[in-house]
Amino acid sequence: MTSPAEMANAIRFLTMDAVEAAQSGHPGMPMGMADVATVLFTRFLKFDASRPDWADRDRFVLSAGHGSMLLYALGYLTGYPDLSDIAELRNFRQLGARTAGHPEHGHVAIAETTTGPLGQGIANAVGFALGERMLAARHGDLVDHHTYVIAGDGCLMEGISQEAISLAGHWRLSKLIVLWDDNHICIDGDTALSGSDDQLARFAASNWDVARVDGHDHEAIAQAIAAARASDRPSLIACRTTIGRGAPSKGGTEKVHGAPLGAEEIAAARRALAWPHAPFEIPAEILAAWRAAGRRGAEARAAWEAKLAAAPGRAAFEQALTNPLPEGWRDAVLAFKRKIAAEQPKWATRKASQQALEVLTEAIPALIGGSADLTHSNLTVTKATKSVTPEDFSGRYLHYGVREHGMAAIMNGLALHGGFIPYGGTFLIFANYLWPALRMSAMMQQRVLYVLTHDSIGLGEDGPTHQPIETLAALRATPGVLVFRPCDPVETIEAYEAALEAQGPSVLALSRQNLPTLRTIHSDDNLTRCGGYILAEADLEERKVTLIATGSEVSLALEAKDLLEAQGIGTAVVSLPCWELFERQTKEYRSAVLGEGTVRVAVEALGTFGWERWVGTEGAVIGMTGFGASGPAPALYQHFGITAQAVADAALARL
Amino acid sequence: MTSPAEMANAIRFLTMDAVEAAQSGHPGMPMGMADVATVLFTRFLKFDASRPDWADRDRFVLSAGHGSMLLYALGYLTGYPDLSDIAELRNFRQLGARTAGHPEHGHVAIAETTTGPLGQGIANAVGFALGERMLAARHGDLVDHHTYVIAGDGCLMEGISQEAISLAGHWRLSKLIVLWDDNHICIDGDTALSGSDDQLARFAASNWDVARVDGHDHEAIAQAIAAARASDRPSLIACRTTIGRGAPSKGGTEKVHGAPLGAEEIAAARRALAWPHAPFEIPAEILAAWRAAGRRGAEARAAWEAKLAAAPGRAAFEQALTNPLPEGWRDAVLAFKRKIAAEQPKWATRKASQQALEVLTEAIPALIGGSADLTHSNLTVTKATKSVTPEDFSGRYLHYGVREHGMAAIMNGLALHGGFIPYGGTFLIFANYLWPALRMSAMMQQRVLYVLTHDSIGLGEDGPTHQPIETLAALRATPGVLVFRPCDPVETIEAYEAALEAQGPSVLALSRQNLPTLRTIHSDDNLTRCGGYILAEADLEERKVTLIATGSEVSLALEAKDLLEAQGIGTAVVSLPCWELFERQTKEYRSAVLGEGTVRVAVEALGTFGWERWVGTEGAVIGMTGFGASGPAPALYQHFGITAQAVADAALARL
Repeated sequence: MTSPAEMANAIRFLTMDAVEAAQSGHPGMPMGMADVATVLFTRFLKFDASRPDWADRDRFVLSAGHGSMLLYALGYLTGYPDLSDIAELRNFRQLGARTAGHPEHGHVAIAETTTGPLGQGIANAVGFALGERMLAARHGDLVDHHTYVIAGDGCLMEGISQEAISLAGHWRLSKLIVLWDDNHICIDGDTALSGSDDQLARFAASNWDVARVDGHDHEAIAQAIAAARASDRPSLIACRTTIGRGAPSKGGTEKVHGAPLGAEEIAAARRALAWPHAPFEIPAEILAAWRAAGRRGAEARAAWEAKLAAAPGRAAFEQALTNPLPEGWRDAVLAFKRKIAAEQPKWATRKASQQALEVLTEAIPALIGGSADLTHSNLTVTKATKSVTPEDFSGRYLHYGVREHGMAAIMNGLALHGGFIPYGGTFLIFANYLWPALRMSAMMQQRVLYVLTHDSIGLGEDGPTHQPIETLAALRATPGVLVFRPCDPVETIEAYEAALEAQGPSVLALSRQNLPTLRTIHSDDNLTRCGGYILAEADLEERKVTLIATGSEVSLALEAKDLLEAQGIGTAVVSLPCWELFERQTKEYRSAVLGEGTVRVAVEALGTFGWERWVGTEGAVIGMTGFGASGPAPALYQHFGITAQAVADAALARL
Repeated sequence: MTSPAEMANAIRFLTMDAVEAAQSGHPGMPMGMADVATVLFTRFLKFDASRPDWADRDRFVLSAGHGSMLLYALGYLTGYPDLSDIAELRNFRQLGARTAGHPEHGHVAIAETTTGPLGQGIANAVGFALGERMLAARHGDLVDHHTYVIAGDGCLMEGISQEAISLAGHWRLSKLIVLWDDNHICIDGDTALSGSDDQLARFAASNWDVARVDGHDHEAIAQAIAAARASDRPSLIACRTTIGRGAPSKGGTEKVHGAPLGAEEIAAARRALAWPHAPFEIPAEILAAWRAAGRRGAEARAAWEAKLAAAPGRAAFEQALTNPLPEGWRDAVLAFKRKIAAEQPKWATRKASQQALEVLTEAIPALIGGSADLTHSNLTVTKATKSVTPEDFSGRYLHYGVREHGMAAIMNGLALHGGFIPYGGTFLIFANYLWPALRMSAMMQQRVLYVLTHDSIGLGEDGPTHQPIETLAALRATPGVLVFRPCDPVETIEAYEAALEAQGPSVLALSRQNLPTLRTIHSDDNLTRCGGYILAEADLEERKVTLIATGSEVSLALEAKDLLEAQGIGTAVVSLPCWELFERQTKEYRSAVLGEGTVRVAVEALGTFGWERWVGTEGAVIGMTGFGASGPAPALYQHFGITAQAVADAALARL
């Protein structure tokens, strides 16, 4: 009969062997948390390793992603199809292997989310647990699962963890259970070097249930998890562990955190734990015990499938999870565009966004909103999106508080969970608070919409701390994000349409200040989907100048065009709302739009970094070269020389 | 006899009037916290308004920077020279006025730091309080002051606040006192919409002293501050206030947070508070009482100056505060460069950085180090920098824990406090966690050094979550930062030299992997100070190709040069370690370096965004166009086509 201790040791040796083979990796955490993971996966976690796509499975998040070998060992042992071959573990950290240095969503099914940057996982998990409650509010008992997290000291030190635990406690996400690897060791040495927080008191202050156990005592762990499952609040279980448990001389020290143990230490561990088996060799009996644990949930999964098959809400549930964009949603987009072209309102694009969201949230039930406490500035709430509260998860609007980073990571969790397309608002400048999570949206290609208003010095009096300069460049430099800066209501809803079609995240950079409607002739085509296009061709026969602008500066470019054409210079205006989509067009299309051989001047009321891509080294860029200032927006545009005249002058100087 | 209540009302009416005049701003906080601020400034704060530069003054940080009118009103009322003219308040939020929308360090003396992005101020304040302790450990009783903070709900919601309060409690910074504007209102509405934390319990969990008072009861406030000053721990005082107190109908609601009250409401406030005076008019008696409060500290200041004059350590103290770079420090730089040119070690630039820091920390006592729990990876500790501990502040090395954002904001506080040049380490990718604080380093032009190692896909197995792609572009796009990516030990110490000379922050992007020494011929000149230079001119007579590289890819460019010259193509290699400094050179210099008319190819093992600035639209950039992967570094360079052959091929294709 295989003992739980032997099963845990299987994790330990797979970890030691894989890190040793790779000569790279982090053995300490998987070895320290092997007992906790064994208890969780063999006695509590609701899953069927053969069917990782079971919608109502419990979610397990390894927030301390450097301990990726824990996940891969569990995947192999329980028999996830994509990890059931030991060769995957032998290839740990090699190019092309599924078993990447940190767990990557999409590489292995057991990785519910990509983790590694500390604190992201625990915040994603809050999104998972929130998604569970919100989906259950819509689909009843088809949805009823837990979210478990293993987090390390680093996760709890990162500020994002506070944002996440505050919200989890506020929302009373009782099915969220965090197992903290309380090993007293960080990379620099003892955690006492850099902290003396009472973590249990801290979590309790945010309305969590808290407990402390010996992380190597299987029965104590099981009792704590059972108690946490019975709680009406989210739970933290501090699991007091020895990092690298099993390594006779390095265990319990920072030496075991992030480096191979070495052949000698591993041999000593084999002796100490009475594990005579060769590297990567798991005795058949132990493997069988693990594989049986991996199928523990098979019956429950089959029962759930039967329930789903018979459920009256089956179609709605499946649609929510597989294709949350309902048939006909584009009709709403077209109707909106027609109306705008006819009425030509003078709206800030944040206002245009609100009007677009009214239409879209009405048409797309999966679309859920929120803001980092700037609802009335971002204009992100709509008639269809009533607030989610701790008492009622049927709402569609989340008050994240002033927690941009937590908001973004929670949106990632919501998107990964399935059933929702989340959007969240803050000021564009505060993209710098949420950047690490947005990067994860991009890496995981999750459909998360960032509604970022007050998108230039045009926000005015709030001054340089609030005026984005480098922000758009940073976002454009980030792979896998669509960055839209629409110029009017038509481009705004077109940007939403393109964002909703996309596989990955999108940013909508929106103005605070009012702007004219420029797309006054209705077209069924989504021109924004091309990334850039000629908004106004030269009125004079020959185009000599091409002015390129985005967002609030497109109307300014049109004024500059008038100035130039009054002097007999044929001038076209290109609206370039999305660089990334423009780059996907053919070279011919791009050349035709940009006017190869014409003088090119770009204008954007943010930093100029990166614009040489479109105007070349010979062109001009009118924009900001330093931080902004506090003052009314029109005064700032004058002061910083972002004017139609300056654009025209720059063109003239180059003709 | 002027009452404290009247004095507080003076703050309220200046606030209402200034926001009304500007038709923009945030009246709620200054009105709500007017009583607390009155107690603090009239009874506790050690300052002399006539001499804001008094080194041993108490520091006051308005973390809730949107309430800037509180600061400006206090500055005017107490008689700070640069605010003593009421015209400054009448110009609130106008272009060119000192009274910017958010308090800007350098615009008004009373702004010890620039605040506005929430949570930055409270973290800066931890840096101030830490700087006080560290400076006191060096200069004895010449340094003995408190740091007071007014923080709002938003500050406490931001994750960075947790990082800061954890460290403050850990370090037992007992002279740090945070006055929390506990008004139960955030922008979206009641704070209960988005949180239900027990803040007192939260701070207590991080070893703070905590108290709760009626924020409109002057005696209660005074008793709480007195008790906090007597504590041996940092203190949080929850001041229960009514936001916009004094506004009869809007007070206590989110309506008063961020918009003018309107003439009618202000008139009603004047009646309710029996304040018949015209806008911006403070009765002489009340102003006199305030101005007297502003000079309360004059005697103490004079006594301190006398003490300083007589102190044996006077010269050292003054040097620390005014010019912390001691005479002769450059000799150490030159000696290091000579030694390297002779010995030509094969070091990773992170290792070169460690060796440079050994030399620099030895030569410059004000240079203090630290890391966000990556000391042994960043290689940031030196023999001269022993650890700071809660018991001993004479050390020079800070263990920040996994708190990158807090680290950066605390470094800002240390730099602003004076006496120190802080550097702090983490991986380059985690610049995205600390970006908002780095932006403040740049805006305030503080000499803070960011030592960011593992600076490309060259870090290898840790994979895409840890491989910076967009990071350098984002940093280069940020105004006011010098971003260095040195190629070898000589450039590394040159980068440090240039960073130490600079007024603002610098980033050093450093490799994990070993690299050859390329600057093998010693030069007394700091070539890195030019930003870019010809490292190797074409060996063949005519230069046809210019290869441009930074950091670890410079040696790769040299290999490519060999490939090209073997085919008879004259090829020069330009090292471009700092774009910002290169941009400051003359156009002629830049053209000569970049080889106007030659085929230009850039290579950098990160994202390519922004490189068109140097190679034009006709040149080539060899780099990353998506996220990285997990694998050994050499395999990754091959896989992503960042090779000498690829560089040579790109040049050949363009010849």
